[in-house]
This record gives sequence, C-alpha cells and structure tokens, in this order.
Amino acid sequence: MESETNSTEDWASRAWNLLSKLRDQSPLVQCITNFVSMDLMANTLLSAGASPAMIHSIEEIPDFTPHARSLCINVGTLSPDWLPAMKAAAELASQFGKPWVLDPVAAGASGFRLNACLELVCMKPTVIRGNGSEIIALSKASLGDSKGVDSFHESMDAVEAAKSLAKASGAIVAVSVVGAYNGLPMMQKITATGCAVTALIAAFVAVDPLHALEATASALSILGIAGELGMDMAKGPASLRMHLIDSLYGLDQAVRLSRTKITSL
Amino acid sequence: MESETNSTEDWASRAWNLLSKLRDQSPLVQCITNFVSMDLMANTLLSAGASPAMIHSIEEIPDFTPHARSLCINVGTLSPDWLPAMKAAAELASQFGKPWVLDPVAAGASGFRLNACLELVCMKPTVIRGNGSEIIALSKASLGDSKGVDSFHESMDAVEAAKSLAKASGAIVAVSVVGAYNGLPMMQKITATGCAVTALIAAFVAVDPLHALEATASALSILGIAGELGMDMAKGPASLRMHLIDSLYGLDQAVRLSRTKITSL
Amino acid sequence: MESETNSTEDWASRAWNLLSKLRDQSPLVQCITNFVSMDLMANTLLSAGASPAMIHSIEEIPDFTPHARSLCINVGTLSPDWLPAMKAAAELASQFGKPWVLDPVAAGASGFRLNACLELVCMKPTVIRGNGSEIIALSKASLGDSKGVDSFHESMDAVEAAKSLAKASGAIVAVSVVGAYNGLPMMQKITATGCAVTALIAAFVAVDPLHALEATASALSILGIAGELGMDMAKGPASLRMHLIDSLYGLDQAVRLSRTKITSL
Repeated sequence: MESETNSTEDWASRAWNLLSKLRDQSPLVQCITNFVSMDLMANTLLSAGASPAMIHSIEEIPDFTPHARSLCINVGTLSPDWLPAMKAAAELASQFGKPWVLDPVAAGASGFRLNACLELVCMKPTVIRGNGSEIIALSKASLGDSKGVDSFHESMDAVEAAKSLAKASGAIVAVSVVGAYNGLPMMQKITATGCAVTALIAAFVAVDPLHALEATASALSILGIAGELGMDMAKGPASLRMHLIDSLYGLDQAVRLSRTKITSL
Repeated sequence: MESETNSTEDWASRAWNLLSKLRDQSPLVQCITNFVSMDLMANTLLSAGASPAMIHSIEEIPDFTPHARSLCINVGTLSPDWLPAMKAAAELASQFGKPWVLDPVAAGASGFRLNACLELVCMKPTVIRGNGSEIIALSKASLGDSKGVDSFHESMDAVEAAKSLAKASGAIVAVSVVGAYNGLPMMQKITATGCAVTALIAAFVAVDPLHALEATASALSILGIAGELGMDMAKGPASLRMHLIDSLYGLDQAVRLSRTKITSL
Repeated sequence: MESETNSTEDWASRAWNLLSKLRDQSPLVQCITNFVSMDLMANTLLSAGASPAMIHSIEEIPDFTPHARSLCINVGTLSPDWLPAMKAAAELASQFGKPWVLDPVAAGASGFRLNACLELVCMKPTVIRGNGSEIIALSKASLGDSKGVDSFHESMDAVEAAKSLAKASGAIVAVSVVGAYNGLPMMQKITATGCAVTALIAAFVAVDPLHALEATASALSILGIAGELGMDMAKGPASLRMHLIDSLYGLDQAVRLSRTKITSL
C-alpha cells in the first residue's frame, strides 16, 4: 500500500466512514454460531447498526442465505448436525458473491473440530479471525494441546502461522488484533468477545466487500475503541461488557478519530 | 367494550392487579424458545414474579406440560427436530385448557419456517405476538422478503394483517405494541426484547386465562413502563436491558398508575 | 473433623488460598450444560480465574476431556441426543482421575429427566449440587411435582434427603448453600445462578481434588460473598448479576476474611 493512505488519520476516517455506512444500511448478517455467544453477538451487531439473524437450520439456508449481505460462521459449540448447514451457507454465500467470515473457535480441541475447520477453510472464507492458538492449530493442521477457547500462545507467536494460513487459504487472517492495537486484557475475561469481534467483521465486510482487509481492520479497531471507552466506566468484566455495547452504540466521530491506532498493514 | 371500563385508570389498576397476582402466584411458565433469547426471557419472567422452565425435549412434554400454567412457543432458532415438541406441547396445553402464546419470529425467513408457523397457528394459540413483518408474512402466508427478526414494516402497516390473522386463527394478535403505547425505539436495539414481551404475555394470561385480551395488553404495557423507567437511567442498549429488568422487578403501583397508556382496545 | 480446623478464620483462609490457586493455575473446566446458563457460567468461571470450555459433542469427548482438569455436567435443557456425551465425558473423567460435578436441574420434571439423572448419579460424581426439590426428587427417585428449576421446598427440608443421597451415591451433596450461609434471596431471581455455583465448584475441586468437600464449601462461600458485595451496589436482579461477576473478579483477601461464614461441616 501507499504510505499516504496508511496514516492514522486516513485509517480513522475510513473506519468511521464504514461505521456510518453500516448504521445507514443496516445490513442483514446471518450468523451460524455457538450457543454461548449468540446473545452478545446479536447485541454487538445491533449496537453497531447491523441486522443480525441467527438462522442455522439447513432447511432454511437456500431461502435465507441469498438475502443476507454477509455470513458469520463460528464453530464454538460445534456438533456434527450443525456442520452441513455451515457448509451449505458458506457455499451459497460464495456463489452469490457475499463475503463470509470464519471463527475457528478452539480449532485444536479435537480431531473432529480441526477437520471441520479445515473443511471450512477450504471453502475460501473472506476472513478468518481467531486467537493465537487457534490460528496456530489451523496452520499446523495438527492436534494441538489447545486450552479451550482461551489463547495461551501469545498472539505475536502466531504471526508466522497467520501468514502461512493466509497464503494457503487465500483468506484475510486476523489474529485477535493484528495490526490494530486497541483492546484490553480484561476483555479476555468476558466470554464471547472474540466471537463478537468476528461478527462485527462480518458486518463491516458486508458494507465494503471489495475492501475486506480495510473493513476487517476497521471492525477490530472500532470494537477496541468501544472497549477502551467502556473500560473508563467499568469495575470488572461484567460492567465492561455492558459499557462496551453502550459505547459501540453511542460512538461518535470525535472520539473515534482521537483513539484510532491502526498501523500500516 | 363499554366505554367506562376503557378509561386509563381502570386499565392501569387492572394491569397492576394482574402483576400483583403474578407475583403472588408465581405461575410455572414453560418456554420452548430460541437459543438467543433464553437468558433474557428467563430473567424477565423471574423479575415479573413468574417461574420459568425452559424444557424443550419431546420426551418430557407428556410429564411436564400438564403441570405448567401456560406455554410460550418461539420459533427464533427453529430446526426440524424441535418442531414436534412444540406441537406436542401446544396440543397438550389446549387439551388441559392452558393458554399458550406463539411468537412467529422471522416467520417469512424461509418456506420451512413459514410452514412451521402456519401449522402452529392452526393449533389455535391463545395469543400470537410478532412484529409487523412477521404478522404480515403470516397473514399473507407467502414467502416475504423478511429482513431477519427486525421489523422493517412500520407496525401500523400491519394492523390490517393482524385483523385478518386474528379472524382466521381465532387468536389474539398483538403487533408489538397494539393499543398500548409504552415502549421505546432503543428497545429494538436489544436482542430478544420481543421474545421477552411474548413470554411476559404468557405469564399474564396464566393468571387470568379467561381475560386473555386484557392480560395481553397489560403485559405489553407493563414491559413498556419498565422500559421507560429503565430508559431514564440507561446510557445505551446494554444498560437499558439491565435497568429494564431491574425496573420490572421493582415496579410499584404508584409508578404503574402514572405511566399506563392503554387505549380502548 | 477437629474443632480447631473448623474455626471461621481457618475456613476463610483455606477458601482464599483455593481462590488464589485457581487464579494462578487457570484450570481448564469442561462444561456440558444447558442453553440458558452457558453465558453466565462461562463468565463466572472466567471471573474466578478458570478457563471454561463449553464442548458437548460426543465426537470431541475422547480428544478433549482428558485435557480438562474437571468436568461440570448440567441437565437443564436436556434432550436424548446430549445424554451419551455426558456419560462418555463422566466416564473419561473418572478414568483419568479428574473430579466431576453434577447439577441435576429440575430432576423431578419428567421420568426421562429423572432417569437420566439417576444414571449420571450411578457414575459416581465427585459432587452433586442442586436445590431442595431436586435433591429430594433424586433421593426419592420418584416423579415429584417439581415446579421447574425453582426450589419450592425450603432447603432445610432437603437435608435428610441430601444425607441419604450422599450415602447412596458416595458423592458430596450440596443443597444450594448447605453449611455455608452466604448468599441472598434476590440471587434466586437471576436465572442460572445455581448453575454458576455448580460450575464454580467444578473449578475449585479442579485445584484441590483431594479435598473436594472443602473445595465445595469454599466455592459456595466465595460466590455468596461476591453476591453480598454485589448486593451493596445492586438495584435489582439484573444489576446484581453484573455486580456479582465484577465482585468475584475483584475479590481480595481482606474482604474475603471478614465475610466468610462457613459453619462446621
């Protein structure tokens, strides 16, 4: 990229423009996701201005998925009966030229899960977002000693893994906050914040599918800023979660510009 | 109805009496509902004084449903394996003379879903509560271009649809806030508030099954008032959700009377 | 037990030591649980310092369960397709010497559920935690007129039932707050707090599996204290839930010592 477009001001105004578009267009985002995160994911999307739909039954995919502007697939509480709908939706999204985002939660937790994630990766997601150990597990494509959904590899350790996964899959690979330094350690003490980030990426790529990389970075940065604003009022992880959503809903351009920290990608 | 019983004071005291009954009797309300709203629905019922039970397995229906005082069926995250239990529970509820309430979430999202909703409507729910596009989809009984669970038709557009659906089904049809003007736009930015309203209707009709119309209007009004009280303290949708539940729990007669706005039904 | 080790100070410092261990070790706790409580359960475990994993598919049990430090099984929204994974995980946990905890939610709600609970009890859980009516139902092993998940027997009524169940099963049986008097009535107005207590017990026994009774009492007491602290700030059940989690996260030794009330077990 050219150096000029990489300046912080340019990024900040680009991210703000995308959020404004999102609020104006209220794109329909289909989520096939896990039982733990459905509530936070739906509320994050609503607060950002998107229109979430948690529809997972394979009977509904042919009618519904073509109407969605983007798709978010998350394997958090995967079981074999959910996988065919995930694949069918991913295929339809690709066929209709809609972007789709994969969250390979706890990819290394079992052989079954890792294989399911690899099958989904082969279907060419627009973006893959995971934590360090998930991206490493996917990249190694081997049974890791994953510690559930929580990252126990430092994210920086995963940069090489992310690069090789991006090369192999053709997807944008976001390791938690790659290239965008907003965000807070306490957010890791709230379940499903990672899932919510991935859903927000799906909403952002819905409104700018031709610039998926910038949309991804913008979504990561926007949620990080909402988290920072929330942190100013929080007394612990539960109040942080509340203030995070409130802040995302109320975010305005002035705050946005002063807080954005996206480095050159 | 007679004009005298339609005055605001009468409605307000009737709604208050029903809430008091609900708190006294703590009726068991069975919910067969979606994954997104289970948490908010259970907490809404508990805060209002009811006793929620999220029991969806068909193996349990024959033993359990006859003990419930009312039933709430919500198709939000419908899949074919859940439908038989919904039907079995609805049939048992009717057989035992218990009121039951249907929330046809995103009724027009797919042919599968619309058919499922129509089958449930044919089983004669006491009340159907949905947003404008859901009621229109059901009423037209045709595949609409529904935008997920969020209403994109103005509720007023749906009044004719509601009337024709009520006539065809014999059910009370509530289009979000039919005839009761409490409530706030920001509540649409919280996922599952519609589902919570429907569950609250189920709790109210449980304590006054012979006056299901008044019970429905009272439930809508009570949650609207809790929302208004919550709004006075809220800074965004997540804090509104918290204050809404707190307000519902703490609602007292003085506030209730001064806030009720139910028009002649 | 000796009278000296039963003094309040000893209990308080023992409970505090366990919480410190939990925060240091961040044990992986697998939960096979219900749809309503997944969110609160995960957030409770994260706030206490544990590493939750909601993994329920039987395909994943052989790879995953041996890596977990403890297991929490909760039958809240049981259906027949989830039961084999619960049994397989319980068997693996026992085989690998990992403690596991059973929450027999609404055990008496149906014959299907009661039988499932009895089968799980026969697999020798380390701890069984339930409310009064659940423990009575399990102990009587007969179809009760259970009122959903809410206790309608006073907990004290269940002490005899708990003793006989403990004798029959070889498990530690905790009836809500047996022997630990922290906790608040308003917590019963928040869905899934019982489930969260059980998950916290699983986390505590993970770090001290050889003293499961003390670990159980400590977990009950710690959550009760967090609830009391939360109550000081709460205006209703929803804000209590938030402050409870915040307080659990921020709990320090000074508060801990001054609040612990564990009687001689």
